[in-house]
Amino acid sequence: MNILELIGRKRDGGRLEADEIAWLIDAYTTGGFEDYQMASMLMAVFIRGLDADELSAWTSAMLHSGEVLDFSHLRAPKADKHSTGGVGDKISIPLVPTVAACGVAIPMISGRGLGHTGGTLDKLETIPGFRTAIDPADFARLLEESSLVLAGQSETLVPADRLIYALRDVTGTVPSIPLIASSIMSKKLAEGIDWLVLDVKVGEGAFMRTIEGARELARTMVGIGNAHGTTTSALITDMSQPLGKAVGNANEMAESVAVLHGGGPPDVVELVMSLGAEMLTQTGVSADTAAARDALGEAISSGRAFEKLVEVVTAQGGDPACLHDPSLLPSADHELVITAEHDGVVERCNAFDIGVAAVRLGAGRAVMDDVIDPAVGLTIEARIGMEVAAGDPLVRIHYNDEGRVGEAERLVRRALVIGDGPAAVPTLIHEEIR
Amino acid sequence: MNILELIGRKRDGGRLEADEIAWLIDAYTTGGFEDYQMASMLMAVFIRGLDADELSAWTSAMLHSGEVLDFSHLRAPKADKHSTGGVGDKISIPLVPTVAACGVAIPMISGRGLGHTGGTLDKLETIPGFRTAIDPADFARLLEESSLVLAGQSETLVPADRLIYALRDVTGTVPSIPLIASSIMSKKLAEGIDWLVLDVKVGEGAFMRTIEGARELARTMVGIGNAHGTTTSALITDMSQPLGKAVGNANEMAESVAVLHGGGPPDVVELVMSLGAEMLTQTGVSADTAAARDALGEAISSGRAFEKLVEVVTAQGGDPACLHDPSLLPSADHELVITAEHDGVVERCNAFDIGVAAVRLGAGRAVMDDVIDPAVGLTIEARIGMEVAAGDPLVRIHYNDEGRVGEAERLVRRALVIGDGPAAVPTLIHEEIR
Repeated sequence: MNILELIGRKRDGGRLEADEIAWLIDAYTTGGFEDYQMASMLMAVFIRGLDADELSAWTSAMLHSGEVLDFSHLRAPKADKHSTGGVGDKISIPLVPTVAACGVAIPMISGRGLGHTGGTLDKLETIPGFRTAIDPADFARLLEESSLVLAGQSETLVPADRLIYALRDVTGTVPSIPLIASSIMSKKLAEGIDWLVLDVKVGEGAFMRTIEGARELARTMVGIGNAHGTTTSALITDMSQPLGKAVGNANEMAESVAVLHGGGPPDVVELVMSLGAEMLTQTGVSADTAAARDALGEAISSGRAFEKLVEVVTAQGGDPACLHDPSLLPSADHELVITAEHDGVVERCNAFDIGVAAVRLGAGRAVMDDVIDPAVGLTIEARIGMEVAAGDPLVRIHYNDEGRVGEAERLVRRALVIGDGPAAVPTLIHEEIR
Repeated sequence: MNILELIGRKRDGGRLEADEIAWLIDAYTTGGFEDYQMASMLMAVFIRGLDADELSAWTSAMLHSGEVLDFSHLRAPKADKHSTGGVGDKISIPLVPTVAACGVAIPMISGRGLGHTGGTLDKLETIPGFRTAIDPADFARLLEESSLVLAGQSETLVPADRLIYALRDVTGTVPSIPLIASSIMSKKLAEGIDWLVLDVKVGEGAFMRTIEGARELARTMVGIGNAHGTTTSALITDMSQPLGKAVGNANEMAESVAVLHGGGPPDVVELVMSLGAEMLTQTGVSADTAAARDALGEAISSGRAFEKLVEVVTAQGGDPACLHDPSLLPSADHELVITAEHDGVVERCNAFDIGVAAVRLGAGRAVMDDVIDPAVGLTIEARIGMEVAAGDPLVRIHYNDEGRVGEAERLVRRALVIGDGPAAVPTLIHEEIR
């Protein structure tokens, strides 16, 4: 095979065959050609796109660039959930112990936050001692014992994605639906799961700003999953305002615990129930959505869901004391409360600006090497459509560094619009793609 | 400026401003960002294109990446001619001494052959002792003394083009009209000329296979030249069959000398006269085409054109003996004559196949590091439309290496079609673009 011939064909709008794509990904991963040649190919793919067959072959090639986990010896159905990322999106943390408590095995591999969106790993790591680097032998044992593993990405899974993502990040080829879809799906398929539920975010705080874009991304990923024998469905959900009240790390962990105790903000609870019901019906654990919701509710009210999280945290070296008493989690030294200047209705609470404010406070990363402060973050009291009176708290900014709070305050003020109403209250769950 | 922002804008079909393009070329040339980032940008430019303003800015930025020659102190009009490359295209060698003998100063900087097309430098270097590496001080002196310099590309002129061309060559971004046009024009404009005539080849042996493509390339280059204050025009000329009879290096030098003595193949003579007339009328040396053709004819018949070549070759260290007696030029040891198998009409004499046959014999380069054999080549007796009888010689293959002749013979036989006629005889000069 000749890299220049393949680049030229894709550049001119032609198709690549499956064996050519397999060679391309393998040769790049093993140093068979240069970064500048892959950069040229990625830009050609970005602009020309990949059709369904090409995309399936591209994802397969990524998937098989490294180890693929195999838990076929476990009797429980193996499933997972993945979100395309949002602000305040801690859903996985209350969701997966609840679903695992209902009998599904979940070998979840999560990422860290980058840019304005947070990452599940960062939130979990606010628990003292919690390890997310799990070697393959431990991974299988933990999954067998607890039906749930909450791990970080390992070096052995999908090495092609690490290389290609790093190159995309510096060559202007990140926001491409086929490249995003193959990156996400190769990592999820490497988990050895048979079922997958995707939470595709849409709105100001999401990668996809429009319902059309979110639908295309969802359909693309669902198509890849089903083509690989992993039954995949997607919910398209709102990310115009933050999810729940907590935006940060330790505070999102605490909010997750509240949900497992039967509390928590209604939107977080509803999304946990909807995604959980999808997982339970998809895997056949529950006969229908009503039965699934009953099962999830019972797992929470009985305490089994919370105990599952305690079990997994303990198994992965974490101190469960802070789950029993979330006030032991890191907390910020200072609080600045942004209040309503006049009576009115919350018309806007922009998730993107809030997410960037969290990064400015130190809760997230502008570049991958940034170190985060687990204690800082925001509590969002405002919800779109809520009536407020002058002086009501809208957002509480939890900060440690005086030098960072000014920029965060400016962003929070920009995020909020208090008007005369009525407000356009966003639907939480837009549609489902199977 | 941020390279990722510029890549993203061009990727999405947007425009780059002149100051952004200036930064881009300068930063790349001085190591301000990485090859993989430029590769991604070049692919985006390849697919999305550059509009006239962007292209002018791109060419300016390339031009000003290095030294720009300045011969404004010379009274003679400064002009040059450039061909986009063909097979048997030795036109510059008889043309420029003839035009210089008429009073135009020509600071010609030529390239080497690569792929199936030959290069003027390689042909000139078949003259023993001839130097084409001319330093800037010598360049000005030689131009002042002889009105003609025949030099190779120096390190100091348009360094951005060397870097960008090398990257395009390995990233599948060569055949792009704006990138080709800016590469050619930046090098020609760096010569400090006020007038330029382009010979844009079209046909099987040219980069542009169609008249539409050739027209677009010609218009693009003419536009760039005029935008930079160098009056530029283009002739679109045939490259479906080789130019003249000689294809190689020493034999093309000998054919060029024949033209300067008033002989040579009619198509070579006609192209010398047409391009020469364009140069003389463009610069105002001749009032009109008829006067220009008279002046060119007189320069040849009087011997002044030939003496100009002798003068320049001598000034650049070459031995003029082989100009006075071309049999002293290198010649091959063996000849294989391909003859007509039956009576008929030459319907096809494919320039591309003939050009590749010349490369296989050792007359050209597959890659830039190849060393050429100046003695080998082909004599093309066949012309499209010519009647032949069985046994008539069609092509003479001049070779030194027995191991190379088989592949060359195969290509030559593939190039030729002898049919029942009538043949579609190609027009030599298709059109003129100003």
